[in-house]
Amino acid sequence: MAIEKVRVVVYGASGYTSGELLRLFQTHPQVEVRAVVSSAHQGATLSSLHGHLGDELGEMKTISTDDIPSCDCVFFATPSGVAMKTIARVLVKNTKVIDLSPDFRIKDVTLWQKWYGMVHTEREILAESVYGLPEVNRQEIRKARVIANPGCYATTVQLALLPLLHNPAYKDVFAKNELVVDAKSGISGAGRKATTHLLLAEAGEDFTCYAAEGHRHQPEIEESLREASGTRVKIRFVPHLLPVSRGIFADAYVPLRGDGSATVDRQGLLSSLHKEYVKFYESQSFVRVLPLGETPRIKQTRGSNYCHVALFAAPDSQYVQVCSVLDNLVKGAAGQAIQNMNIVFGLDETMGLSYAGVSP
Amino acid sequence: MAIEKVRVVVYGASGYTSGELLRLFQTHPQVEVRAVVSSAHQGATLSSLHGHLGDELGEMKTISTDDIPSCDCVFFATPSGVAMKTIARVLVKNTKVIDLSPDFRIKDVTLWQKWYGMVHTEREILAESVYGLPEVNRQEIRKARVIANPGCYATTVQLALLPLLHNPAYKDVFAKNELVVDAKSGISGAGRKATTHLLLAEAGEDFTCYAAEGHRHQPEIEESLREASGTRVKIRFVPHLLPVSRGIFADAYVPLRGDGSATVDRQGLLSSLHKEYVKFYESQSFVRVLPLGETPRIKQTRGSNYCHVALFAAPDSQYVQVCSVLDNLVKGAAGQAIQNMNIVFGLDETMGLSYAGVSP
Amino acid sequence: MAIEKVRVVVYGASGYTSGELLRLFQTHPQVEVRAVVSSAHQGATLSSLHGHLGDELGEMKTISTDDIPSCDCVFFATPSGVAMKTIARVLVKNTKVIDLSPDFRIKDVTLWQKWYGMVHTEREILAESVYGLPEVNRQEIRKARVIANPGCYATTVQLALLPLLHNPAYKDVFAKNELVVDAKSGISGAGRKATTHLLLAEAGEDFTCYAAEGHRHQPEIEESLREASGTRVKIRFVPHLLPVSRGIFADAYVPLRGDGSATVDRQGLLSSLHKEYVKFYESQSFVRVLPLGETPRIKQTRGSNYCHVALFAAPDSQYVQVCSVLDNLVKGAAGQAIQNMNIVFGLDETMGLSYAGVSP
Amino acid sequence: MAIEKVRVVVYGASGYTSGELLRLFQTHPQVEVRAVVSSAHQGATLSSLHGHLGDELGEMKTISTDDIPSCDCVFFATPSGVAMKTIARVLVKNTKVIDLSPDFRIKDVTLWQKWYGMVHTEREILAESVYGLPEVNRQEIRKARVIANPGCYATTVQLALLPLLHNPAYKDVFAKNELVVDAKSGISGAGRKATTHLLLAEAGEDFTCYAAEGHRHQPEIEESLREASGTRVKIRFVPHLLPVSRGIFADAYVPLRGDGSATVDRQGLLSSLHKEYVKFYESQSFVRVLPLGETPRIKQTRGSNYCHVALFAAPDSQYVQVCSVLDNLVKGAAGQAIQNMNIVFGLDETMGLSYAGVSP
Repeated sequence: MAIEKVRVVVYGASGYTSGELLRLFQTHPQVEVRAVVSSAHQGATLSSLHGHLGDELGEMKTISTDDIPSCDCVFFATPSGVAMKTIARVLVKNTKVIDLSPDFRIKDVTLWQKWYGMVHTEREILAESVYGLPEVNRQEIRKARVIANPGCYATTVQLALLPLLHNPAYKDVFAKNELVVDAKSGISGAGRKATTHLLLAEAGEDFTCYAAEGHRHQPEIEESLREASGTRVKIRFVPHLLPVSRGIFADAYVPLRGDGSATVDRQGLLSSLHKEYVKFYESQSFVRVLPLGETPRIKQTRGSNYCHVALFAAPDSQYVQVCSVLDNLVKGAAGQAIQNMNIVFGLDETMGLSYAGVSP
Repeated sequence: MAIEKVRVVVYGASGYTSGELLRLFQTHPQVEVRAVVSSAHQGATLSSLHGHLGDELGEMKTISTDDIPSCDCVFFATPSGVAMKTIARVLVKNTKVIDLSPDFRIKDVTLWQKWYGMVHTEREILAESVYGLPEVNRQEIRKARVIANPGCYATTVQLALLPLLHNPAYKDVFAKNELVVDAKSGISGAGRKATTHLLLAEAGEDFTCYAAEGHRHQPEIEESLREASGTRVKIRFVPHLLPVSRGIFADAYVPLRGDGSATVDRQGLLSSLHKEYVKFYESQSFVRVLPLGETPRIKQTRGSNYCHVALFAAPDSQYVQVCSVLDNLVKGAAGQAIQNMNIVFGLDETMGLSYAGVSP
Repeated sequence: MAIEKVRVVVYGASGYTSGELLRLFQTHPQVEVRAVVSSAHQGATLSSLHGHLGDELGEMKTISTDDIPSCDCVFFATPSGVAMKTIARVLVKNTKVIDLSPDFRIKDVTLWQKWYGMVHTEREILAESVYGLPEVNRQEIRKARVIANPGCYATTVQLALLPLLHNPAYKDVFAKNELVVDAKSGISGAGRKATTHLLLAEAGEDFTCYAAEGHRHQPEIEESLREASGTRVKIRFVPHLLPVSRGIFADAYVPLRGDGSATVDRQGLLSSLHKEYVKFYESQSFVRVLPLGETPRIKQTRGSNYCHVALFAAPDSQYVQVCSVLDNLVKGAAGQAIQNMNIVFGLDETMGLSYAGVSP
Repeated sequence: MAIEKVRVVVYGASGYTSGELLRLFQTHPQVEVRAVVSSAHQGATLSSLHGHLGDELGEMKTISTDDIPSCDCVFFATPSGVAMKTIARVLVKNTKVIDLSPDFRIKDVTLWQKWYGMVHTEREILAESVYGLPEVNRQEIRKARVIANPGCYATTVQLALLPLLHNPAYKDVFAKNELVVDAKSGISGAGRKATTHLLLAEAGEDFTCYAAEGHRHQPEIEESLREASGTRVKIRFVPHLLPVSRGIFADAYVPLRGDGSATVDRQGLLSSLHKEYVKFYESQSFVRVLPLGETPRIKQTRGSNYCHVALFAAPDSQYVQVCSVLDNLVKGAAGQAIQNMNIVFGLDETMGLSYAGVSP
C-alpha cells in the first residue's frame, strides 16, 4: 500500500494530544494535515491554540464537522464518547481511524461502561478494533480499520511487564500475586482543563497521589496484559502527580520466581532477566532496555517516542523492580498514534518519530 | 528541669539542616544560639551562608572548634563521622547532644560500619544513645544524654507503619511479608553539595530513582521498626528524587491481614484501621491522620513539623496503601531535633514548632 | 490602647491571601480568629480549603454574612467591589477595617473607576481611608479606621524608590524621566482561580509578560509615590509571570542624577546612595538593604514579611539599578495587613511576623 | 557546492551545547558525525554523557585529540580559550570551523582580552572570522572559513533591536540614549558545571539577577549592533536567572522617537513599527514577529530554532517594549551553529531545524 502522503484529519483542536499530533505531523515527511475539527474553537487559527506551531500549520483554521474533507486517516484527540458517536460516519468513507481517546481500549463492554459511565453504542466496531500497542499487535494493526491507541499509563506499564509475562517461569508469579505498580505522571496527563488543583501555584513544588481507590487505566492494563500473555494479571495500580509538564515513571515490583528465599543468586537472576528483556525488545525501535546499573530519567525521553526500561534488584530482597519511563504525550499518546499510522499505511514505522529526547 | 533559655551550639554551618535549625531557633522563645562551629566557613557571617536568616542571627560569625563556649545542648548538623569523633569532648562538659547525622542511628555496629564505610569508635556512647523518634521513645528521650535524630526517610516510613506494627493482627503480615515502600524525596535531602545531577538544569522537570540496589536508610528503618514493635520487618525500600526543594512522600503497600481474598469487606477493614491510626496518634502533636478520602500533599507540610498520614484501599485489592508525608528538613531533621530538645529540657514539646505549612 | 487579644473576622475564605492571613494568625500571640466569612464555601472547614492549616483553626467552619460575631478588626481578603459594598455595615459597629482588596487604594476616584470598571460608591470612606504602607504612613495608620492595604507590586516598587524620592538631588530625575520598572511575580499573585494559562503544564518551565499595555498597579504606584514624596513620578511598569508559587522581584532602572556623563564616579555615587538607603530604612523592621555586592533572591524572603532591597551600578552606565524583593502573599498582602493591625492596636509592630524566609 | 553529507567533528562532549548539537545532528539528513573529541571524558560513550541520545549515536565513544579523522566542518563546543588554541591546526586541513565558544565573537581584541582574561593569540584568524548571525551576515557566512557563533543573550537582543537600527528615524534614539535591556535566562545558559547556586534546591522556586556590574555579552551586543547598523549603541544589560532549564526572554525598553510627548499617536506608531519588523524579518525563516497583542512565551520556542519577537506600547508611555524570546541552546547556540553550517555548505538553511517548539 505505497502511499505518497497520508492525508489526515484531526478531531479535537485545543488539547495537549492534539497539539502534540500537530507538532509531530509538521515534520513528518509523508503526512498532509487536511483539517482540524473543533466545535469549541471553530475558526480559530492553530497558532492561537498552540503558539509553538510553525507558520504554515499555525495559520490553518479549525473547521466544523460539516466541512470535513476527504482523507485517508482520522485521528480522534477528543474526550471520551466523541469518537464512539462519530466513528460510524467516518468509517463509511473507507477511512482508517486512530482513536487516542479511551472509547475502544477495553473489549469488555461491561467494564468499559462501569469506568466511563456511559453506554457503549458501537459494540461491533469495538469488537473489530485493534489495540494499538505495536510491540504486541503489529500484525493486527497493519490490517486494522480502527485502532484503539493505548492510554499513557497503560503503555508504560505494559512495556515494563510484557517480557516477564512471556517467560513461562514467571507466569506463575503473575497468576498467584497481585503486583504493586506505583506510577508517577507529569501534569499534562490530566489534560488542558482549567482546574484549581492543576494550577502551578498548587501543583508546583507539590506531589500527591490520586484515584487511589481505583483508576480507569487499571482495567485497561489488566485486560491488555492478559490478552497479550494468556495469563491472569492483577495489579495494585496507584497513580501520582509529578510537578513536571510531561513524562511518566512507573515502578513495578515483581516478586522473584520461586519462594524469594535468601539463597537465590539475585545478581545472576537479574542478569538473566535483563538478557531476556534485551532480546524481547531488540527488534523494537522505540523501547530501550538500559544497561544494568543505569537509572532511567523522564527527561531523557521528553518530546521523544522512546520508552526506557530498567531492571533493579537488591541483594536481600525478593522483588525485582522494573522501571518504565516515557513521554505521556508522545509514546503515551500522539507518537504512538503516528507509529500506528505508519504501520497501517506501510511506511517505515519510525518515520517522523526518531527524534532524541529534549534534555536538559 | 525548668530552664529559662537553652544555650545551644551548632556544629556545621553551611548545610541545609544547619540552616533549618537556625531558622527555627530564630523564633523559638527559649533558645539562645551561642555559637555555630564551622571549619570550612570559619569566620563567615551566617547571612552569607543563609541569606534568609534575620539580622541579629544573620550577623553572627561562625567560630572554630577551639573557641566553643559553654552551653546546654550541642547539635551536630555534620557529615557522617564528625559527631562520632567529637562527641566525647562534648559530653565531658555535661552537655546534651542531639546528633542530626547518622552516627548513632543504628545500634548494630556491624551494619552501621557496612553502610557508612568506617569503623565506629564510640560504641559505648552508641549503646547509651537514644533513637530520637518522640512518637516511640519519648520517655527515654527525656532522660537521654545523647539523642540520635532519625533520618528523614526513616521518620517518614516509621510514622506510616508504627500503628500497624502495634496491631497484633498485623504482626503476622510483617513477619511473613517483605513490604514495598516506594519513597519520593525533594532534592534538599541530598544535601547542599555541588553535584552535576542535582543541578536545576538536570533535576528540574525530571524524576528518577536512586540507590535501587540498597539505601542507607533501609537498615535504620528495619532496625527501628523491630525495636519499636518486637516484630521482624523486611522492607523493599526504593527512594526517588522529586523535582522540588523539600518534602518526602512515602507509599507503603501492606497486604491486608488474612489471605487477601475477595470476600473480605475492604471498606470495613479500612475504616477500622483508620480508627486505630487516629487513636494511635491522638496524643501526638505532630502527626495528623487525614480523614478517609483526603489525599496528602507534600506542600501542606512544607516548612512545618507536621507529618500527614493517609490510608487507602481499592475494592478488589489485597493491599492497604499507607501514605506518609513530611518536610525532610523539619520533621525529617531540624524540627524533630528541636522537638527532642524541648523534651530533654522539660519544655512544651511543641514550643517554637507549631507553625502551619507554607502553602502555596 | 492595650488589648489582650485582637478579635478578628476575615471576609473571604478560599483565596491565597485569606489562607495566608490564617496561617499567620495561627501563631500570632494576640489574635483570636472569631470567624471566616464565605458565600461560595459556606460551612466548609478551613482545612478543606487550606490543607496546611493546623487542627484547631483547620476545624473551624466558614459562616455566612448573617452570622458575623462582634470583633475588633475586619480583614477583607475578597475580590474588588466586595469591601466597598460591605464596609459601611462593618464600620457602624466601631470596628477597624483592613482591606486587602484594591477598593480603597487609589484616592483619585476617576482613575480607580477607570481601572476597576465600576462606580465607587463609598467616596467618603475612600477619602478617610489611609494607605497602609507602614514605612510611609505609620502615624496615620495608628489612628485610622480604614486601612487600604497596598498591592503586592505597589509595595515592592515603592520600597525600591522611596529613599530616592526623599533625596532632593533626585527629585529632578523623577520629575524629568519616565522610569522603567521591569517586575516579575510568582503565580500566586494571579489568585486561586482556575484559568488555563496558570496551569502547571502551561506556566511551569515558562516565562512571559502580561498587561504590557498597562496594569492596575501602575496608577496605585504613581499616586502613592507622589503622595509620599510630593514629586511627580511616571513609571513604565511591565509585570511578568515567574514559574514559581510566590515572590516578587522588581528591577527599577533610575538614571543617575546629572547628565550621566562618563566622568561621574559611579562607585562613589553608588556608595553614597547605598548609605542613604541604609539610613532611610534603619528604623524599619521589615526592609533590609543588602550590603553592596550582594544580590537578592526571592527565596530568601519566601514565607516571611521581609523586603530585601539592593543597589547596583555598572562602571560605564548612566543607570542605577534598584532591586526590590518580597513575598507577594506576606509583605505584599497578609503580612503587611497584620503589620498594620499591630500598629492600629498598639502592639509591637513585628508581633507574629518575625519569621525568617523558608529556604531552600 | 553540492555536498551529500557534511562530515563533522565536535570538540567538547559533555556540555549542554555539545549535547544539543548531537541531538540535532541525529535527525539532520545531510550530516555525518565522524567524531566527538573530549579530554575529560575520553572513551566515554555519548549516551553515558547524554542519556537522551539515540542508540547509534549514543554508542559512539569520544576520542582524544590525537585521533581526529578528516572532516568537512569542525564545531567547537568548548570553554573559552580552547578553540583559539586549536583552530590553526584545524584550518590547515581545509576544514570549516564553527565556534560556539566566545573566542572569535568580539573583533576588538582589547575588549575581548579584558572580558575573557587571556591574551588572544590568533588575531589574524579573528580578523578573518565572520560573526555568525545569519539574519545580518548571511552573505559573509556563505564564504567564511571561520564562523563565530553568537552568544545566546547576544542573539536574543540583536534580533530584538536590529529592525529599529535600520530605521533612520531611530538612529538618533540609539545615538542619544542608553537603552535598558532586562534579560532573563534559563539555567542551562550557565553550563553544565557543578556549582552550588545552580542546584535545584537553590535555583528552583527562585529568581535573581547576576553580573549586574557588567556581563561579557554586553560588549558583544554593542559591537555587533554597531557593526550591523553603523550606529553607536549603548545598552544597560542586566541578566537574570530563571528557574527553568531552557529559554531566554529579553525585554528592551526603547524610547519612542521624538520627545515622547503625550500628543504622539502611540497606537499608530506601534502599528507602523510592527509593520517594519514584519517586513524586516519576512524572508528570515527563524524569526517570527508575533501579531500585535500576542505575548511571547519561552515555552513556545523550547527545543526549536525559532525566535519570537513582540512589540508593546502603553498609551501614556514614551517607551516601546520589544520582547525577544528563544531557546538559548538552539537559536542561541547549537541550532544557529547548524543554520550557519547549512549556509556554508550550500544546503537549505532550514535543513534539520524546522521543528516546532516542544510545549507543554
